[in-house]
Amino acid sequence: MNQSPVSLSRSRTLIRALLFDTFGTVVDWRSGVARDAAPFLTRHGIAADPHEFADAWRARYQPAMEEVRSGARPFTRLDQLHRENLDAVLRDFGTDPGRLPGDSLDDLNRAWHRLDPWPDCLPGLARLRPRFIIAPLSNGNVALLVNMAKRAGLPWDAILGAEVSRAYKPQREAYTRTADVLELAPAECMMVAAHNSDLEAARKAGLATAFVPRPLEHGPNQASDLVAEEGWDVVAPDFTQLAERLGA
Amino acid sequence: MNQSPVSLSRSRTLIRALLFDTFGTVVDWRSGVARDAAPFLTRHGIAADPHEFADAWRARYQPAMEEVRSGARPFTRLDQLHRENLDAVLRDFGTDPGRLPGDSLDDLNRAWHRLDPWPDCLPGLARLRPRFIIAPLSNGNVALLVNMAKRAGLPWDAILGAEVSRAYKPQREAYTRTADVLELAPAECMMVAAHNSDLEAARKAGLATAFVPRPLEHGPNQASDLVAEEGWDVVAPDFTQLAERLGA
Repeated sequence: MNQSPVSLSRSRTLIRALLFDTFGTVVDWRSGVARDAAPFLTRHGIAADPHEFADAWRARYQPAMEEVRSGARPFTRLDQLHRENLDAVLRDFGTDPGRLPGDSLDDLNRAWHRLDPWPDCLPGLARLRPRFIIAPLSNGNVALLVNMAKRAGLPWDAILGAEVSRAYKPQREAYTRTADVLELAPAECMMVAAHNSDLEAARKAGLATAFVPRPLEHGPNQASDLVAEEGWDVVAPDFTQLAERLGA
Repeated sequence: MNQSPVSLSRSRTLIRALLFDTFGTVVDWRSGVARDAAPFLTRHGIAADPHEFADAWRARYQPAMEEVRSGARPFTRLDQLHRENLDAVLRDFGTDPGRLPGDSLDDLNRAWHRLDPWPDCLPGLARLRPRFIIAPLSNGNVALLVNMAKRAGLPWDAILGAEVSRAYKPQREAYTRTADVLELAPAECMMVAAHNSDLEAARKAGLATAFVPRPLEHGPNQASDLVAEEGWDVVAPDFTQLAERLGA
């Protein structure tokens, strides 16, 4: 395996695995969900802007996971949370989901499996993969991430994240258990994310951190996560530059 | 995703995922372990034939997992069981493992991460992957299977198996939980194995079955698993023929 360890000047730790946040960092969820929501909304006569619909659906993401993190409900995979949130957001837009065909709702729910990567992802990952183990460390479930990877051509070495660690980021266990299944120390893993909060939790769990901003994740008026808010180990504008910075 | 379902004439079920036994079916564990044991045995002055050593180490595999299956000990990943078994087999060969350097033992234990695939595996998997989700359903742990895949170039879509399902084959849950994390029915999954017993358990759990004999897994005098002992859905002499039979 051509997997020469890379030392970070900051800590001299050898990084063996790069773990990627997925929604926002690797794939453009807003455009992808809006693209698949548009014909659904038209077909069912729902008056909603597809991007606003995507934003509203995504806004229910953290609260739904919080129920699991808090222990209020047992671990539930993200596809199920997305499906419940879809019913809720339809009600918010004035539509009773009970009047819509279940197949149509299930298909729209799988829009989260059909998201496209940002243009730099595939060339960047192709450069990184010979040198590092690369895997998602996502709150997405295994089936979602497998289907996404096959459709988009994401060359992951493994599908890790919430469903394997049975914990939702930013819970510490999501990071530490992922490192553990790779038989690596947290410091041998680098979290790559477009979200400062994800990197903050990863750093607290002992991982190295790389920030790749995605200033269009939330559309043209994005106000958050435009810049590195702490001194992350690496900051790069895209995955090819990340590869450059890591000597890959 | 170019993943047209394939219907089996037997059941007309659409197969979406091929799940592969790994040790013996995908990789030649006996040759690989013997190759790495040879210099270890010489260096430490242990009089043992490397292939006999590999066989003796492997003979402790099922009994160690049985302790987990029976509930006598909690789920323990295979790397740990292999490491304990290494100490035991060294004692069987008259050597106190306590007198050997821990690094040297740990490195030999990772021989199981450095196994080579049978020659037909990479071309066969390359044909199968555009049409099916392909993943190991192995008793190996995630780190072992990730390291093996990166070194050997095995193009898995996911790393599944014991550590994800928290059950060791042939426990039913190893099969059913693996299908479940892929959000597939058991009948949408096909177990591919060189071992009749693995396929028997997979079939009982509702999976389709493909037998690919590996008549040299146990060396030139192998007496078991030379032929299909039940009417498996597919029988093929190697992975390229398996692809042919599945229309991939």
